[in-house]
Amino acid sequence: MTTSKTPLLDRIASPEDLRKLRPSELKQVAEDLRRETIDAVSVTGGHLGAGLGVVELTVALHYVFDTPRDKVIWDVGHQTYPHKILTGRRDRIRTLRMGGGLSGFTKRAESEYDAFGAGHSSTSISAGLGMAVARDLADGDNHVVAVIGDSSMSAGMAYEALNNAGALHSRLIVILNDNDMSIAPPTGAMSAYLARLVSGGAYRSIREAAKQLASHLPRFIYDKARKAEEFSRSFITGGTMFEELGFYYVGPIDGHNLDHLLPVLKNVRDKDDGPVLVHVVTQKGKGFGPAEESADKCHAVNKFDVATGIQIKPKANAPTYTNIFAKALIAEAEHDDKIVAITAAMPSGTGLDIFGKAFPHRTFDVAIAEQHAVTFAAGLACEGYKPFCALYSTFLQRGYDQVVHDVAIQNLPVRFAIDRAGLVGADGPTHAGAFDLAYLGCLPGFVLMAPADEGELMHMVATAAAYDDGPSAFRYPRGEGVGVELPERGEILEIGKGRILREGTKVAILSLGTRLADSMKAAAELENYGVSTTVADARFAKPIDRELLRSLAANHEALIVVEEGSIGGFGSQVFQALSEDGMLDGMRGAFKFRSMTLPDAYIDHDKHELMIARAMLDSKAIVGKALELLGDEKAAARVMIA
Amino acid sequence: MTTSKTPLLDRIASPEDLRKLRPSELKQVAEDLRRETIDAVSVTGGHLGAGLGVVELTVALHYVFDTPRDKVIWDVGHQTYPHKILTGRRDRIRTLRMGGGLSGFTKRAESEYDAFGAGHSSTSISAGLGMAVARDLADGDNHVVAVIGDSSMSAGMAYEALNNAGALHSRLIVILNDNDMSIAPPTGAMSAYLARLVSGGAYRSIREAAKQLASHLPRFIYDKARKAEEFSRSFITGGTMFEELGFYYVGPIDGHNLDHLLPVLKNVRDKDDGPVLVHVVTQKGKGFGPAEESADKCHAVNKFDVATGIQIKPKANAPTYTNIFAKALIAEAEHDDKIVAITAAMPSGTGLDIFGKAFPHRTFDVAIAEQHAVTFAAGLACEGYKPFCALYSTFLQRGYDQVVHDVAIQNLPVRFAIDRAGLVGADGPTHAGAFDLAYLGCLPGFVLMAPADEGELMHMVATAAAYDDGPSAFRYPRGEGVGVELPERGEILEIGKGRILREGTKVAILSLGTRLADSMKAAAELENYGVSTTVADARFAKPIDRELLRSLAANHEALIVVEEGSIGGFGSQVFQALSEDGMLDGMRGAFKFRSMTLPDAYIDHDKHELMIARAMLDSKAIVGKALELLGDEKAAARVMIA
Repeated sequence: MTTSKTPLLDRIASPEDLRKLRPSELKQVAEDLRRETIDAVSVTGGHLGAGLGVVELTVALHYVFDTPRDKVIWDVGHQTYPHKILTGRRDRIRTLRMGGGLSGFTKRAESEYDAFGAGHSSTSISAGLGMAVARDLADGDNHVVAVIGDSSMSAGMAYEALNNAGALHSRLIVILNDNDMSIAPPTGAMSAYLARLVSGGAYRSIREAAKQLASHLPRFIYDKARKAEEFSRSFITGGTMFEELGFYYVGPIDGHNLDHLLPVLKNVRDKDDGPVLVHVVTQKGKGFGPAEESADKCHAVNKFDVATGIQIKPKANAPTYTNIFAKALIAEAEHDDKIVAITAAMPSGTGLDIFGKAFPHRTFDVAIAEQHAVTFAAGLACEGYKPFCALYSTFLQRGYDQVVHDVAIQNLPVRFAIDRAGLVGADGPTHAGAFDLAYLGCLPGFVLMAPADEGELMHMVATAAAYDDGPSAFRYPRGEGVGVELPERGEILEIGKGRILREGTKVAILSLGTRLADSMKAAAELENYGVSTTVADARFAKPIDRELLRSLAANHEALIVVEEGSIGGFGSQVFQALSEDGMLDGMRGAFKFRSMTLPDAYIDHDKHELMIARAMLDSKAIVGKALELLGDEKAAARVMIA
Repeated sequence: MTTSKTPLLDRIASPEDLRKLRPSELKQVAEDLRRETIDAVSVTGGHLGAGLGVVELTVALHYVFDTPRDKVIWDVGHQTYPHKILTGRRDRIRTLRMGGGLSGFTKRAESEYDAFGAGHSSTSISAGLGMAVARDLADGDNHVVAVIGDSSMSAGMAYEALNNAGALHSRLIVILNDNDMSIAPPTGAMSAYLARLVSGGAYRSIREAAKQLASHLPRFIYDKARKAEEFSRSFITGGTMFEELGFYYVGPIDGHNLDHLLPVLKNVRDKDDGPVLVHVVTQKGKGFGPAEESADKCHAVNKFDVATGIQIKPKANAPTYTNIFAKALIAEAEHDDKIVAITAAMPSGTGLDIFGKAFPHRTFDVAIAEQHAVTFAAGLACEGYKPFCALYSTFLQRGYDQVVHDVAIQNLPVRFAIDRAGLVGADGPTHAGAFDLAYLGCLPGFVLMAPADEGELMHMVATAAAYDDGPSAFRYPRGEGVGVELPERGEILEIGKGRILREGTKVAILSLGTRLADSMKAAAELENYGVSTTVADARFAKPIDRELLRSLAANHEALIVVEEGSIGGFGSQVFQALSEDGMLDGMRGAFKFRSMTLPDAYIDHDKHELMIARAMLDSKAIVGKALELLGDEKAAARVMIA
């Protein structure tokens, strides 16, 4: 709700209005904006700490730059709630991450102020450089500002972009937002380097920053004396690394002090050539006590009480898949000292924080660096270790070539624990794990599993630990399990064998992964229509259980395969096997086969079950498909409309 | 042939023998090795310049380190011909890159001295760090040496690995082999930085290097005075960037001078903690006049005359797909000034050297940096440009997440010109473009084309230029076209429409891409069996031509889809469409459908046509499949055995 506590913010419908204010009023705007952000997230839940850290920076950028003509590209959009409030979306800010509401990230389709969509990290400099070069080609004069966090700087693509920007010498402003804290405490040498730049919290004074800037103005002839002076300055400030990469370095400056931010940004705006890097130091969670005091600075929160910061935790029905994975891996690692675990800056997201407490020396957080994570694991596997590389499905895309070239072609037994597979709810399409079954299923010799529930996940962890003949992966969803009884330790499954859960005669449903629950529900429902239904759990997307497939195809009038993944995945493996075995040939009688996958569209963020319904992968859709295949079109239509 | 000109080399069956020699004999070994390398490549063709540049380094590494117990990891294996000669493969060195012969890259399955397989660049530090950490976990004491070229340093994964290595502080030796020249002249700020380190060709003298090393020995207390001294040294030598990333930096030293290489390598071998970077400067093509004088330093050559260096060029029957792509893109760019082109360090491999001559300001070589290349293109597309991102299929894997997250989800009209799609001959499985149809076909809204010949490629370049509604790609093979008449400019194809080339009644073959020639040949052959055959060219893997599919399925007894790609690609799109349209349902009569893809195995390097035969994708395999589907098992068997 808009309250009288935010008088200045109430006057800002767009950055145009902001730019009408006097500089002295901006501090109040920032205060209003911070209060509004906290209040909004208290209602919606979502990412809080990152946004609070960039309130002043957001105000300063929209004040100094002529957005949206000037392009401001936010890296990882989850810090952009204040930006959304300032850019005409305040009235919808309390719909953040809800179905039909605002995205939790920047999204080009949502606003012309969102110059580039970003759910994954470290993309802003590349995108910004493309926009800067486009401007140069078109003889334009707008500015391009890429904001990037210190943690995002560990990813190779940020370095690739710096390397190219330094060589192209296009006019580009990079704001390095250094809060020394991403989701987890930072790792890596670059992060240590940045910390040294800010050692002792000694920011540049505005006078010093002005001196730095003056030294970059082109009217100064670049001679040896000048160079020596620059070197000596860099020697003191430590910005040499960025200077060596062809950037002018300015900073570090206090990112919460508008009196410093505004003149520095104005100056770099008016610099007329080459790339500049402004090193801004901010505090994640700034200005909200509970966030400042919490270990993760309220990175992502549930709804909470504004006064106390106490979060309203939804009641858990069962442990999460993430936690069960950690528990299962610990159980295996206790019996096998060759097991090691690797995460790319997601220790808590992948459960490796738990594993790491049990086995600190066998846990490796390589920072946001999925490419390296995969090949590092390959190196460990070469030497007889059993690496479990725990990544989100969507982030494994970053290491795809390494999976192919360094792991699969060499047939190295790296295990991929793929979290957040399938649709992921509030994070939306940038975080969906939709493609892993396709991009891994095509790789020769890859063993690819998906558990139907958390007990199955334990078995698959045990199976992956035992399987040492080549690469393997198991993919499991975000969120809670279904609450099954759990063993102390998983059982080793036979590679490539599925299981039958329910025997029927007319229709067979073959499910992969956690679509099993809806498959069982559909089978029960089909009984009401007099349709006797078999349900099987494939367990393996690859290798496929051809015997099971033949039996299902031979003994039913219809076979429906269900997976929470795109075309090209499990269903394609089944198609190929059935067809090669002649089970899809005509003249076999009334047999029909269908593969139910995610549709050929990105599904906007919403509650998981609603996204599944929209994807036509829920029990209703399965029932409808079965009735349709059996020729009962009328009943099928009734089911689907209901 | 082994000649009397290589007396010392003749005594070396393995590195063990090398290590029995006196240091003073190594110069002669290097000379022998260089001569043998030149002679071998003159017979086989292959990569020459890179190997010649590391002859002394190869000798020194195997002399100083206890390989294979100590791990030497070569980045991009094409520089390892000398290494192969020294490590027991001299007798097979004249089978390089031939069917059944040695791989042109390092390959774990080939030798225990090949610690890590590498066809793609920039993987060695990650793999080496994994091996170093494995050694530490096992309380081992072996050494790990990762060799990496200066050009490979532009790739993000090399930086990710340095960043992690600097933080982990494991004992690891990185040899930066700086020849200021990869396949193409170097680009990027890092490359300029390295050039500054070696400015004026001033190598460290051995006395200076010893001083550098002494300053790194742990007995020196790290105090402020020391730190200041180190900084000042770095200030002079310029190695600060690596020092800031946590590495001890030694160099630059002359990589062709064994008197310098041996003591420096011995010293860094005996350093007992932390990562070290040794900056070695070499000359690509060193010691072979024609290579030293050529622009690309004889990067990859045909067979040649050793005396003159004159290459024996195989007679060309038709222009290559690569050249036709360049020609077609120039034709489009002449009519549309929004067209720009991007390559990742492969200007000549992708034909963008030709495009770049015509449009220098619209051509961007971003260095080995596929991730950045893709998102940089996305940034250009945001601003209304029409970027053509020209990459090899196998290297596009490096930018997969960027294709998904930055291009496809945002529906940006980036065009991917995918060269080297399908099997690639002598380069083998690390370079095969096997998976693009699967990993792109699963992305919603992606337009995916494959030309049947070079005329079709021109049409697809024109189609991609005209199509501005979202991302598109066209994939084409390595090598020569089939020699068709070429238009001045391509025609714009209707999106998602295939074409029929030959009409028959019994069997239909639906080909994607250049499998068309074998499909036509198969159809002609099938006439001899009295089988009237239709042949269609799909043109589009996505969106699929459902009308064409329905017609083919409705009017033939068998439909065979052929593609030079893995499971999960075009065939899967066809399966899904046919099945959804009810064309695979039983009771439709005697209709049979099969999808012919690459097998579930990596196919070793060989001549392309032999690889295709092994993959069962040649005309014989198609004929056999057709006869089998028609029930003539005997004829099918006869065909396949013939």
